[in-house]
Amino acid sequence: MSETFAARAAALDTADELADLRKLFTLDDGVYLDGNSLGALPRHVPARMQEVLTREWGELRIRSWDESGWWTAPERIGDRIAPLVGAAAGQIVVGDSTSVNVFKAVVAASRLAPEGRDEILVDATTFPTDGYIAESAARMTGHRLVPVAPGDVPGAVGPRTAVALLNHVDFRTGRLHDLPGLTATVHAAGGLAVWDLCHSAGALPVGLDAHGVDLAVGCTYKYLNGGPGSPAYLYVAERHQAAFDSPLPGWTSHADPFAMDPGYAPADGSVRGRVGTPDILSMLALEAALDVWDGVTVDAVRAKSLALTDFFLECVGAYAPEGVVVPVTPQAHAERGSQVSLRCVDAGITEPVMRALIARGVVGDLRRPDVLRFGFTPLYVGFADVERAARVLGEVLSEVSGRALDGVLGEV
Amino acid sequence: MSETFAARAAALDTADELADLRKLFTLDDGVYLDGNSLGALPRHVPARMQEVLTREWGELRIRSWDESGWWTAPERIGDRIAPLVGAAAGQIVVGDSTSVNVFKAVVAASRLAPEGRDEILVDATTFPTDGYIAESAARMTGHRLVPVAPGDVPGAVGPRTAVALLNHVDFRTGRLHDLPGLTATVHAAGGLAVWDLCHSAGALPVGLDAHGVDLAVGCTYKYLNGGPGSPAYLYVAERHQAAFDSPLPGWTSHADPFAMDPGYAPADGSVRGRVGTPDILSMLALEAALDVWDGVTVDAVRAKSLALTDFFLECVGAYAPEGVVVPVTPQAHAERGSQVSLRCVDAGITEPVMRALIARGVVGDLRRPDVLRFGFTPLYVGFADVERAARVLGEVLSEVSGRALDGVLGEV
Repeated sequence: MSETFAARAAALDTADELADLRKLFTLDDGVYLDGNSLGALPRHVPARMQEVLTREWGELRIRSWDESGWWTAPERIGDRIAPLVGAAAGQIVVGDSTSVNVFKAVVAASRLAPEGRDEILVDATTFPTDGYIAESAARMTGHRLVPVAPGDVPGAVGPRTAVALLNHVDFRTGRLHDLPGLTATVHAAGGLAVWDLCHSAGALPVGLDAHGVDLAVGCTYKYLNGGPGSPAYLYVAERHQAAFDSPLPGWTSHADPFAMDPGYAPADGSVRGRVGTPDILSMLALEAALDVWDGVTVDAVRAKSLALTDFFLECVGAYAPEGVVVPVTPQAHAERGSQVSLRCVDAGITEPVMRALIARGVVGDLRRPDVLRFGFTPLYVGFADVERAARVLGEVLSEVSGRALDGVLGEV
Repeated sequence: MSETFAARAAALDTADELADLRKLFTLDDGVYLDGNSLGALPRHVPARMQEVLTREWGELRIRSWDESGWWTAPERIGDRIAPLVGAAAGQIVVGDSTSVNVFKAVVAASRLAPEGRDEILVDATTFPTDGYIAESAARMTGHRLVPVAPGDVPGAVGPRTAVALLNHVDFRTGRLHDLPGLTATVHAAGGLAVWDLCHSAGALPVGLDAHGVDLAVGCTYKYLNGGPGSPAYLYVAERHQAAFDSPLPGWTSHADPFAMDPGYAPADGSVRGRVGTPDILSMLALEAALDVWDGVTVDAVRAKSLALTDFFLECVGAYAPEGVVVPVTPQAHAERGSQVSLRCVDAGITEPVMRALIARGVVGDLRRPDVLRFGFTPLYVGFADVERAARVLGEVLSEVSGRALDGVLGEV
């Protein structure tokens, strides 16, 4: 069996037009399937950062705000991310964490919504920070927070809906939600749609402009490989920019920041989404990391991503012992992100399984209580990696579930 | 004249117990008096960042959240800053920009204040971001914003005062405000005092605990030399931590963040001031930069700072042509930060003067319309630097004001 899969993997790798991109990253002999948590290091970033540190900070110091382009980095890097999420230039600004950007987006969207609407819908299965921040935003703007399963959004939106905050891909299950359809549903009810792209940007087409998304946020340290905790971004559709009213109107979003005017007057365009002084070291590491996308299309990435996750599901189906894990990531391509989550039927084996996998060079992660997560970054994961990961997983599951059974029997 | 000052400078440098610290920084042949805007690069930071990039991100990747101490960096680095601002451990957390921390601090303080108080006082001469953010905080919490000159705070506080947001050192004039006295005044009125330490931390003693400050924020890229746009920090006095109610309750402030619980439950202690995923590259550069403080006392820094600014004012008095610039930084030590601001009597010469100074290797900056700013970082600025800066300034002022006069005469 493994010869067959290994041979298929080799053939798929040979035919993979993105295979050479792996050389752009620092990787080891293991299989890294945690790029949906922290993307691998693009090889050239350390050298670029040496230049930023020693030349731009060390020698030019304050002059670098102009001469090294520090001041304009948030918009410049936003424009680099824009084509990856289907946005025209001038609508994305980089800076702050995803959580802070969720706050900006939800509060600002609630102020853009028609008068009298008092509900903010939030994906009840969302990555928790979105829910926590949306709750704070609702409390501070006098809205009622309505948590709702994504499938129930169509029935939940209505004349009271100001904003719906939704995740494009569920962090736990890897389920891809219907961004075009749900955006249209929210719009039909007269509300605004805010999307969290953390688990989709860089892995699949988003189409922010094409689908009329109102605002969006996303992180850059997963499929965009920007580095640990690298700055997030905020998208404000051009049609909303003139009325965008930020709850965090920091000085760098001012129309004339160096006037140091005691009165606030917002800048035009995406600059209005800024808050404080840009975090240059992290921001320029991200900018350099984005170089790996030169000449790469998101459509090609998506095609490979689906081929990788299809192949992984097939290999797991063949290698894993019967009835020990169950995929929770949808089979349908239209409902699948770039990750495969497997539920352990016996939740107690989840942690020992992931520990054993990591010890054997297959790095995924887990979400308590019972989900094994494997992320597939098409820029650096190949089909031989997939076959090996599934094979090692099969071995580990056999051993651990066998041991678990022994343990139970031993206590009889 | 210049021989006298030069000789005095040499003697002062010889006697300076902090003089050797300059070797820890990357500096050139010029005089860098803009450390109150962007601190110089500590020499060892690039090597440390190579390790962070290539080993911690590149090789360990996701394991570094535990194994390299990434996850606990915000509190760990907060505890490194704590002694520099007179705080016991466990009260400072690093992350986000100053502006975002002002929002957290002012909103949280307004929630800690006694019921029924409806005013937030803000220093009317403050760095503008504090005013902009305080206005947003007031709007979102139903308070009235009361801008007031710091000298008028005693008359402005009263039974309606919930919070006063004050700057320790004025960014424009370099005036040091009376933190102990004003904190006591605000407390006597029953309100909470929030201090912005951007222009004082690392330059002079702050005494947060000793003076009973309630909350405080500060940046780390000025006198703390953390790098361009490095993360800011939030101080919440221990007595307020249990009731600290953040407007930005992101997932990393949760009591059990990896439970990924849809319900928010805040962590205890300074962790509660966190928001999103910590920005590791910038944060670890800051951590490394703080090494230069090993064995250095803030009292020694303050003593040198006052000696530097005294000497600069004296040299400027001697070297500058009569009536062209006027110091706006107070003469009294108790009212002076670590910067000297000179107002140009003819505002029109401000920009040409600073351009000429920079061209001759003396780097300060300006604040429109008429203020020349010179910051003195005792860790790397010496007395010969001060004499040279004042001498070059005198030459430039003579030339520029002379030219300006010619221009006027030429038009007669």
